[in-house]
Amino acid sequence: MSKGAATRVSILDEALHVASQVGFEGLSIGQLADRTEMSKSGLFAHFRSKEQLQLQTLDHAVSRFTDIVVRPTLKAPRGERRVRELFDRWLDWETDALAGGCVFATASIEYDDQPGEMHDALVRQQRDWAEFIATVAGTAVSEGDFRSDLDAKQFAFSLQSLMFGYRHAGRLLNDPSALDRTRAAFEQLLDASR
Amino acid sequence: MSKGAATRVSILDEALHVASQVGFEGLSIGQLADRTEMSKSGLFAHFRSKEQLQLQTLDHAVSRFTDIVVRPTLKAPRGERRVRELFDRWLDWETDALAGGCVFATASIEYDDQPGEMHDALVRQQRDWAEFIATVAGTAVSEGDFRSDLDAKQFAFSLQSLMFGYRHAGRLLNDPSALDRTRAAFEQLLDASR
Repeated sequence: MSKGAATRVSILDEALHVASQVGFEGLSIGQLADRTEMSKSGLFAHFRSKEQLQLQTLDHAVSRFTDIVVRPTLKAPRGERRVRELFDRWLDWETDALAGGCVFATASIEYDDQPGEMHDALVRQQRDWAEFIATVAGTAVSEGDFRSDLDAKQFAFSLQSLMFGYRHAGRLLNDPSALDRTRAAFEQLLDASR
Repeated sequence: MSKGAATRVSILDEALHVASQVGFEGLSIGQLADRTEMSKSGLFAHFRSKEQLQLQTLDHAVSRFTDIVVRPTLKAPRGERRVRELFDRWLDWETDALAGGCVFATASIEYDDQPGEMHDALVRQQRDWAEFIATVAGTAVSEGDFRSDLDAKQFAFSLQSLMFGYRHAGRLLNDPSALDRTRAAFEQLLDASR
């Protein structure tokens, strides 16, 4: 990686960290300059606008998510084992990847009523993700682990819901049983899919 | 209702409307003065601080939620019918009560990493709500509609998760099947509880 590319990654890592705690609307070039000890004019030259900073930070989140969740999932054997890998890596992402939790969940609440490029980019990413989950569930159908008439999109909806529930119970309510509850609900979903 | 009390309710209705669209952090006394055509100094005298405005708006949301969801639920016969009433009225709240959707979901994302009075008030409200759901599920156990070893708190967790999934699919993704997916997942949850 060139020095310029490495600097860009470290700036976006910091931006992602901030967005996970205060949201994408809480990002600003000035504050990021303070946190990275770079010049504000240098960051302005790079990002040009707050919206560009937000969009590139979202893009960076997708790239991190792909490394942490998507790649390992695709390495697991097709079928229920791949579904379980997806679930476990997604829990890692939600729990450990960012101090303030999943930025896609944060952005979902920030942009669901707010038209614009961030809304559109987020919707594209979230649709891709729902389709990815459904495709992985489909491998468990074709391998015979899940029943042949499983509605894979319904499965994706339920799994996505669970992850929101996990964030709520774990981060907001600080419920010590949040992880156990999420795992139990996941096993219930698998049972209903067999 | 006295004129003063009616004015207070109409200000808080407007604040709730704003919070549902831009979040509680997006509330300000100045902007509320513009929207209600009242004097900024009058509103300052009433609310004293932004935090007090946020807390009273949250309190107002709880009161609205009690009228729209909790009261009708408690009027339904104990058992699965009461669980269904809770679900249907909660869907009404999520879908129709506020232009920008459920303010508790919005606040959950805003305050999960932000200590303070709003965080604490929200956590109290959300714990009360989880206990209410578990209690209603418990009536379905004691009436023999749900199995005797049902974990009512687990049921509450799964139902809460579903509602987050509904908001995400319906509001962010604008998925025309969001309501059907949520209802199908609810029926699956009932099946697993019998």
